[in-house]
Amino acid sequence: MNRHDLALIGFGGVNRALADLIRTRGDELAEELGFALRVVAITDLRLGSLVQDEGIDLDAVFALGADDIFAAWPGGAAAPRNAEVIRETSADIVVEATFTNPHDGEPGVSHVRLALEAGKSVTTTNKGPVALAGTELNAVAAAHGVHFAYEGSVVSGTPLLRFAASTLQGLRIDAVRGILNGTSNYVLGQMEAGMDLATAVAEAQTLGYAEADPSADIEGSDVRLKVVILANEVLGARITPADVSCTGITDLTPADIADAAARGLRFKLIGSAERRADGSIDARVEPMALPLTHPLAGISGPTNAVSFDTDLLGTVTVSGPGAGRVETAYALLSDIIEIDARVSRTAEAKR
Amino acid sequence: MNRHDLALIGFGGVNRALADLIRTRGDELAEELGFALRVVAITDLRLGSLVQDEGIDLDAVFALGADDIFAAWPGGAAAPRNAEVIRETSADIVVEATFTNPHDGEPGVSHVRLALEAGKSVTTTNKGPVALAGTELNAVAAAHGVHFAYEGSVVSGTPLLRFAASTLQGLRIDAVRGILNGTSNYVLGQMEAGMDLATAVAEAQTLGYAEADPSADIEGSDVRLKVVILANEVLGARITPADVSCTGITDLTPADIADAAARGLRFKLIGSAERRADGSIDARVEPMALPLTHPLAGISGPTNAVSFDTDLLGTVTVSGPGAGRVETAYALLSDIIEIDARVSRTAEAKR
Repeated sequence: MNRHDLALIGFGGVNRALADLIRTRGDELAEELGFALRVVAITDLRLGSLVQDEGIDLDAVFALGADDIFAAWPGGAAAPRNAEVIRETSADIVVEATFTNPHDGEPGVSHVRLALEAGKSVTTTNKGPVALAGTELNAVAAAHGVHFAYEGSVVSGTPLLRFAASTLQGLRIDAVRGILNGTSNYVLGQMEAGMDLATAVAEAQTLGYAEADPSADIEGSDVRLKVVILANEVLGARITPADVSCTGITDLTPADIADAAARGLRFKLIGSAERRADGSIDARVEPMALPLTHPLAGISGPTNAVSFDTDLLGTVTVSGPGAGRVETAYALLSDIIEIDARVSRTAEAKR
Repeated sequence: MNRHDLALIGFGGVNRALADLIRTRGDELAEELGFALRVVAITDLRLGSLVQDEGIDLDAVFALGADDIFAAWPGGAAAPRNAEVIRETSADIVVEATFTNPHDGEPGVSHVRLALEAGKSVTTTNKGPVALAGTELNAVAAAHGVHFAYEGSVVSGTPLLRFAASTLQGLRIDAVRGILNGTSNYVLGQMEAGMDLATAVAEAQTLGYAEADPSADIEGSDVRLKVVILANEVLGARITPADVSCTGITDLTPADIADAAARGLRFKLIGSAERRADGSIDARVEPMALPLTHPLAGISGPTNAVSFDTDLLGTVTVSGPGAGRVETAYALLSDIIEIDARVSRTAEAKR
């Protein structure tokens, strides 16, 4: 059976969930997917790095205590050594899941570039490299005959990018708009129920939806990066975050929301990209008061959704989880399935 | 460039819309899709049949007057000659778009079987053959090395079956449930706004949503066939319509709907199939009062939607048009794209 060897760069919740999936359901997945998965490298800020070309014992990794690190293990080191591991690992797929840096995408951009240049395909859930250097990194992948996949960079594991690329073939997509941030959507729902912004944000933090610093969620900058990714992927644009006008929900008052409700409208924080008649892209993040019959008006709580406006089908909408460790790990698995299919097709064509 | 030759069996609104798409956008589609489309046979109850292996002049077909028929044309005949045309045409893909017969699926089942046995792939929007003979017809297709595709048999062009089969790979789907009939959904919406059933149905007929005989829509039998297709395709079941318990919306009163609304609930006609713990399938059609936060509660008017309950992603929902000529014609195009990809992969593998 075909097999893919993975290097997990960053071992936070998402890569841990992927490793746990391989550990507990690997055989079942292999049978279903037609290929096996093996982890041959892990790097982590706290644990250090572990490189074992013959495959890492994931049970042992999950049995590590809170103070244990990889240093004493064969192939282990106390430092994460991300760049060295990416260059030296025998993995054919690098799974990049470090933190999103909205300013320059680093170190994610460098991790992805290093891997692609070393002839390894990459899957990432990291918005930074995709939104800020996607065009360049796709070109690097093509030049090295490998693949760069990033389903989880928008709306977690809900397979939006793949939906647009594969199941909407033959349609012209003129606009894409969505609810792309679960925290702000949850907060708006609570404000509609009468809560003020600060209380609703605090509640979202308690529930684990919002980060300790919720500004990227409620000021719209998280959505802005996702709009860049959607515009470039789905509309074939080449925009950057600076091309996206951005208004968050911080200026919305409970009175605004109540007034809208009285008129049968509901505020949602909408990220959108639309092709203008002249071919340019109108991309924005802003709170919009939608009629309750709008396909995005009924999306509640931490759920995300994206609508595609098409020529032949009108509007088609996909909704699903926009966060969660296991859900986001599925995005990585879904990318790996796609990479495997592309590699197989290339191999067939060469035979 | 690769090319597919089509035989259009039935020339009602949907196949007409497909022909018009090929006529007006064929070159553009060919460039995008990498293959050309040509119509080489058309059959129709009123027009008769037309078989021209070198390609039919679609402009001439669309210029036909209301009393014109194919009889006087080269390759034309006054009778539809469906079976003969399917057997004799040089087409490699037969596009079956005759009416749905919910009792035995005929003549659709015979059309599909004949085509597959003649070594031609088939795309259909006809629920009958898929719901009533899908297992058999898929086996015939496999035995003859051709393909049977039917995206448009459920929720029109909204690519639900393809979404489940391709973009949800690696997930275990435990249940599928949806709003699968636009007419009944529209009627429920109007009843929520205070209209009685009969008036709402009459309005739906005026708007072109409901058939002259709306019983299949409001009594649930249309949804029942779609539940069979979804259960068999998405859950790998092998059920028949008799396995689906079925209650329509005819017994719902405006008072029921108002009572539900007062409790924050909204009635929807839900078709569902769920895998029980013992592996058997619980399939049903019934009105359900859903909380407004449910992903299907916000689906309004003639829109359709299907939710998939998955192990790793939780619930993912796709919504879009559930009817319409052009929208349903897109389902056929989407099937043709899939057939082309499968044929290409087989050809690659044989090289």
